[in-house]
Amino acid sequence: MDGKSALEGLFYPQSIAIFGVSNSPQRVGYSVLYSLLRSGYRGKIYPIHPVSGGTVMGCRVYRSLDDIPEGKVQLAIACVNERATVEIVKECGRRGVTNVVCIAGGYRESGEEGGLLEKELKELAKTYKISLVGPNTLGIINNEIDLYAVFHPCRFRKGPVSFISQSGGVGHTLLIQADEAGLGVNKWVGVGNRTVLDFPDYLNYLGSDPGTRAIGIFIEGTEKAGELVRAASQIDKPVVAYKGARTRESDFHALTHTGSMAGSYKVYHDIFRQFGIYPVDSIPEMVASLKALALAPPARGKRVGVVTHSAGPSILIADELLRGGCLLSSFTERTVEKISHGPLGAAVIPKNPLDLTGSGGTGEIFGYYLELVAFDHNVDIVVAIFFPHELWRFPRQEILAAGRRSGKPILVCAPAPAPVWEQERKELEECSIPVFRDPHEAAWGACAMAFRASYFSERVAQ
Amino acid sequence: MDGKSALEGLFYPQSIAIFGVSNSPQRVGYSVLYSLLRSGYRGKIYPIHPVSGGTVMGCRVYRSLDDIPEGKVQLAIACVNERATVEIVKECGRRGVTNVVCIAGGYRESGEEGGLLEKELKELAKTYKISLVGPNTLGIINNEIDLYAVFHPCRFRKGPVSFISQSGGVGHTLLIQADEAGLGVNKWVGVGNRTVLDFPDYLNYLGSDPGTRAIGIFIEGTEKAGELVRAASQIDKPVVAYKGARTRESDFHALTHTGSMAGSYKVYHDIFRQFGIYPVDSIPEMVASLKALALAPPARGKRVGVVTHSAGPSILIADELLRGGCLLSSFTERTVEKISHGPLGAAVIPKNPLDLTGSGGTGEIFGYYLELVAFDHNVDIVVAIFFPHELWRFPRQEILAAGRRSGKPILVCAPAPAPVWEQERKELEECSIPVFRDPHEAAWGACAMAFRASYFSERVAQ
Repeated sequence: MDGKSALEGLFYPQSIAIFGVSNSPQRVGYSVLYSLLRSGYRGKIYPIHPVSGGTVMGCRVYRSLDDIPEGKVQLAIACVNERATVEIVKECGRRGVTNVVCIAGGYRESGEEGGLLEKELKELAKTYKISLVGPNTLGIINNEIDLYAVFHPCRFRKGPVSFISQSGGVGHTLLIQADEAGLGVNKWVGVGNRTVLDFPDYLNYLGSDPGTRAIGIFIEGTEKAGELVRAASQIDKPVVAYKGARTRESDFHALTHTGSMAGSYKVYHDIFRQFGIYPVDSIPEMVASLKALALAPPARGKRVGVVTHSAGPSILIADELLRGGCLLSSFTERTVEKISHGPLGAAVIPKNPLDLTGSGGTGEIFGYYLELVAFDHNVDIVVAIFFPHELWRFPRQEILAAGRRSGKPILVCAPAPAPVWEQERKELEECSIPVFRDPHEAAWGACAMAFRASYFSERVAQ
Repeated sequence: MDGKSALEGLFYPQSIAIFGVSNSPQRVGYSVLYSLLRSGYRGKIYPIHPVSGGTVMGCRVYRSLDDIPEGKVQLAIACVNERATVEIVKECGRRGVTNVVCIAGGYRESGEEGGLLEKELKELAKTYKISLVGPNTLGIINNEIDLYAVFHPCRFRKGPVSFISQSGGVGHTLLIQADEAGLGVNKWVGVGNRTVLDFPDYLNYLGSDPGTRAIGIFIEGTEKAGELVRAASQIDKPVVAYKGARTRESDFHALTHTGSMAGSYKVYHDIFRQFGIYPVDSIPEMVASLKALALAPPARGKRVGVVTHSAGPSILIADELLRGGCLLSSFTERTVEKISHGPLGAAVIPKNPLDLTGSGGTGEIFGYYLELVAFDHNVDIVVAIFFPHELWRFPRQEILAAGRRSGKPILVCAPAPAPVWEQERKELEECSIPVFRDPHEAAWGACAMAFRASYFSERVAQ
């Protein structure tokens, strides 16, 4: 399936029909309509219910697709049970609606009978050339046009990252955490049972989607891992994958969730790396990795230089950098020489991480050493640790200058309460310098960048 | 040293002298004064500077301890360089000030000369029976009396957890993250070089401190690990430890930080566990563990029952529970029977985690199954996953009832944007039910409780 053309109508519909909307807020259809209205989607919305009629939240409810007077519906969202969904997909096919999101579960994940229903869905989609999302999904989001076709009403900041998630709950949590990290979302899809559209289809589409700069995947398991990694490797954008179901017991649980057995965790990790997909182990690591990859200029290698005025956090970062495959490079002789002649003199030991101690907490002093590390030939990625202090100037100008002049990625770790952090974050991130609050997050960002640099240099070397 | 009596004056001083206060906001002394004034400490504060005099932030500056008219100073904070600090400790000793916090670094961590100065400090403390914190520390906090004697001005919510940190930066980050998790702090100390007061002294004190319900330790390394773990094991409160400097390279860095070589990471972990200290691997894990241990009633075992209406997060939680030593118990026949007769009928597969699917997102249905799991004889700890939804009622009453009636710890995972989460969090946590936002955090909390249950049952068995 040609991802781009086929999925364009799915993510950029000008009109949406929602099947199964009545005046009951407990029902999924009501939530989807509420969500679309609240997010400010500006296309046409047609709630459909065969019996109830009337209006819901001020929208007229139609009885069927035939009942809709104006032109063609571009996207249908089926918010009815598993049997009725099959009928709706049939109706959509007959009426030329080629994009359908099927919310209901109750298919192959629930047993034999559901499996047969799912086959019907698959055949209908084939017959009518329908791009079918799900079934068993939270829905889809295109933040560019304020399209929140999901049954969990929400709203997140706009930005360059898109997500493909095999779990609505985990995918929703990713959105929450990305938003709070200041990382905006572009598109989001819950793949559900992947009866028709599968990981490779979404990857192909997002790979050529101009609004998407980096892609995060949450995966429980797939029998088509090969296609997935090949699709990812052909994309010229960073792809980060989080594989759930690490242990045998949770494997079993994943089987009954979206109907696919989760494979061996380690095998997935190894294959991901081999194909240039960066594997992570948690939601915060996914967000931190995507943030670094989406915001900072690419790194040329995996050698990290750390500058700090507080030793402890630099130790935690060093731990995590080394665990994640980075190198803590030795500084060049030239840098060592310049460190010894710096404003703090011999009090600064010229090693990496470079600890300026309490005296390095002023902007000017911090800036002097940061510049040295950023220009060191043995350093590909810089991590700068600075605790915002009410009375001391944050070295924003120095960090911006070091980033601009060296052309290297600079990752800032600035632990502070959210409101304080938010201000520095915004100004630095507008200039391609990602700012993290937790030491591990900064290290994860650096590791993701180092992985990508190594992947490309190894590919060139082959 | 008798922890309780000796450290009472340190944490509950009625008068404080700050050495090294001038009108320069860049200086540490200025920051400490600012911090104490802003936090609302109600004791007497005497800024001291031998030359400058005048006033700083409206406070009269004295020339020396002799210059202070009224009575005795109970706590002195030395905010001057390493040499002048030695003189101040001498002055304090002569004038009967027996609690001194020494902020400056530049002692044994910086080489031989500093080592000699540190010896002087140690001898003076011995001669004059001084409880000396540091040197090379951010300071101390007693949130009960709004005492923020630190040079990084801050303010965090009050609560039951106290911290002992070998790094000011990591300790400060712990406070930030605890605060945002809704976990309040009682006391906090940066141990610095531990020249006089060491981990065991602080542990002994906090162990009998009525305001402290659980203790978090961040440790880089100590040559007195044996004393530390023995002290911890004699305390009737949960102790959680985070050991930095995991790798050899970061070991080397820790050596030059607070002057002590960090030991083998794995050895620390094993010894911690053996003595009932729960080891964690990150700041968020520390906060989640302390939150569960401080808020929830103790668990009777390590068998966890999980209830969810979204499968993905339960898979992540299962992964982390199994990794952390919990068991995902099978439900009893009675529970299995009742599940099959529940409101969702055969659609719910009676296994653990118990996935109610999308249909379980209503308060009544969720509550029915939660109650079954909470009362199952094979379950010691319950994890309830519920995504707060704008249109659907959060099962707050059901969760509270299950907790109250079963007497078992219930940990809630409720991923939501901060403002939504905050409301549910507050009401549930007031009733001893901790609420987490990230699936791993909920699992970490359960693992910490399971560890403590196992530790006590093994101790009883011996």
